[in-house]
Amino acid sequence: MYYVGIDIGGMSIKAGIVDTEGNILIKDSIKTGSYKSYQTIVLEMADLINSLLKKLGISKNDLSGIGIGSPGTPDCKNGRIIYNNNLNFKNVPLRDEMQKYINIPVYVDNDANCAALAESEVGGSKGTKNSVLITLGTGVGGGVIIEGKIYSGFNYAASEIGHTVIEYNGVKCTCGRKGCWEVYASATGLIRMTKETISKNPDSLMITLAQGNLDKIDAKTAFVAKRQRDEAAIEVVEKYTNYLAAGITNVINIFQPEVVLIGGGVSHEGEYLLKPLREKVYSEIYCCDGIGITKIEVARMGNDAGIIGAAMLVKQDN
Amino acid sequence: MYYVGIDIGGMSIKAGIVDTEGNILIKDSIKTGSYKSYQTIVLEMADLINSLLKKLGISKNDLSGIGIGSPGTPDCKNGRIIYNNNLNFKNVPLRDEMQKYINIPVYVDNDANCAALAESEVGGSKGTKNSVLITLGTGVGGGVIIEGKIYSGFNYAASEIGHTVIEYNGVKCTCGRKGCWEVYASATGLIRMTKETISKNPDSLMITLAQGNLDKIDAKTAFVAKRQRDEAAIEVVEKYTNYLAAGITNVINIFQPEVVLIGGGVSHEGEYLLKPLREKVYSEIYCCDGIGITKIEVARMGNDAGIIGAAMLVKQDN
Repeated sequence: MYYVGIDIGGMSIKAGIVDTEGNILIKDSIKTGSYKSYQTIVLEMADLINSLLKKLGISKNDLSGIGIGSPGTPDCKNGRIIYNNNLNFKNVPLRDEMQKYINIPVYVDNDANCAALAESEVGGSKGTKNSVLITLGTGVGGGVIIEGKIYSGFNYAASEIGHTVIEYNGVKCTCGRKGCWEVYASATGLIRMTKETISKNPDSLMITLAQGNLDKIDAKTAFVAKRQRDEAAIEVVEKYTNYLAAGITNVINIFQPEVVLIGGGVSHEGEYLLKPLREKVYSEIYCCDGIGITKIEVARMGNDAGIIGAAMLVKQDN
Repeated sequence: MYYVGIDIGGMSIKAGIVDTEGNILIKDSIKTGSYKSYQTIVLEMADLINSLLKKLGISKNDLSGIGIGSPGTPDCKNGRIIYNNNLNFKNVPLRDEMQKYINIPVYVDNDANCAALAESEVGGSKGTKNSVLITLGTGVGGGVIIEGKIYSGFNYAASEIGHTVIEYNGVKCTCGRKGCWEVYASATGLIRMTKETISKNPDSLMITLAQGNLDKIDAKTAFVAKRQRDEAAIEVVEKYTNYLAAGITNVINIFQPEVVLIGGGVSHEGEYLLKPLREKVYSEIYCCDGIGITKIEVARMGNDAGIIGAAMLVKQDN
């Protein structure tokens, strides 16, 4: 049997047919348009699935089900998306709509949860029962796997680890709170810290790297300049890593998972980020010389995490 | 069948025989002495159990097992306590030692986890699958129940929610970190805030309540003075409640449990604390008008939570 995995993104919708081992056998994508009705979008998804089935030479009878990963808040039980700002979704019955075209089991979950599930099934946390995926991008996303399954709380809104206050009365967050971890540990936070430090250090190499244009500062700028021993850049990376470490330590003190995986743009720094990060975290975690210590690694799944994770929603239930 | 629940405390060891519904049929206690060897303590526990069995007129054949709740870090799999400062326990094989005297299944877990399990089985979170118990005492304890079972991570050290940094680079915590939630939301934190505010407000009613002696300030002082509209006390309670709310909001954003229960000494303020607390939390949680919102209630189990929760360790496995 095979699973369909669909990854709804802000720019495109990706779909793939995945085997029980988590391998993508075939995939394709269509552009997303927030101007389209959800009925149109789901019809296009169904067409996409049918074309993939045809190309692969199988039929819908060979599918155990369809998994859909979407940003926003899902109602997993009823296969709906309660809210998604990018696609203008509000209480959208994805399952019911999809089953009008392809009447097999349909599963819906949050995209961050799907990514964590993909890591757990075939990626960096494969073989573990409990793991946490932290993605450092525009925001800080979280996905928690407990006993091999996505943990999402009684209302499917859990594991918003980025929206835990780490600096009481700190910098304002998009969620309305002040001092959320996301404000400091996201790529956005890193860019803000870089700009703040540059404004106090006009001779920093970081300005040269950005060709004198603050708008060209990105999440790599400080890391690149640090490698060339720019003092201000060292300061930025140190500050960023301290905040990141404080939040990872919080995650470990709460979950004590077998592994914490770091994904998203900033994670591309790899061991250059992770080595000092581990040192800071391991010096602070609330643990004893007992049974073991959480590993901290880079997430392994790339762009296909969404498709594979969504497909694994089907596997979880079968 | 019956369960034995044993609650190891700093001052005494309590034991009870509990039925499958979580009712204590008989209980008794012995004094704890850190000068005693663990072998002596376990022998005394076994004697205590045997005397309870005799009084109740049943035999060890009527028992499904013995559950032991202890402070410190447990190794649940092997029935050991890895470390307990108060009792001078280090890698103590409680299960093996107990089975020398009463050879039936023995379960060992952390006392905070046992209290959360007691609430889940027969207390304030009965009937829910996911709940979190927060105890506001000398420290801030946490117990997390997921799918009706204690969540304790792969190394049994999880749910140390009190040791998550909420004020980056804040007040030093006993765990070595700076700015842990425990430093602000514990009774100890409340007393510190009360003293700090008094020092700036020498006319506060709080000084009168403490008979002019700062050492007589306790976790009730500010609440009592607030009821009499003392301005400085209002300020203390507001500040304390804000910190408490920030951490509870973090807990909800992470776990989205059906209910968060507040226990420990400070929780005796009841609705006088919880009403403003709920307002603050509900204005900040990362949730949508979706499926439901976490309830926040006072924990219901009293002094017997330890015995009942430990007994329920046996039930969990049967």
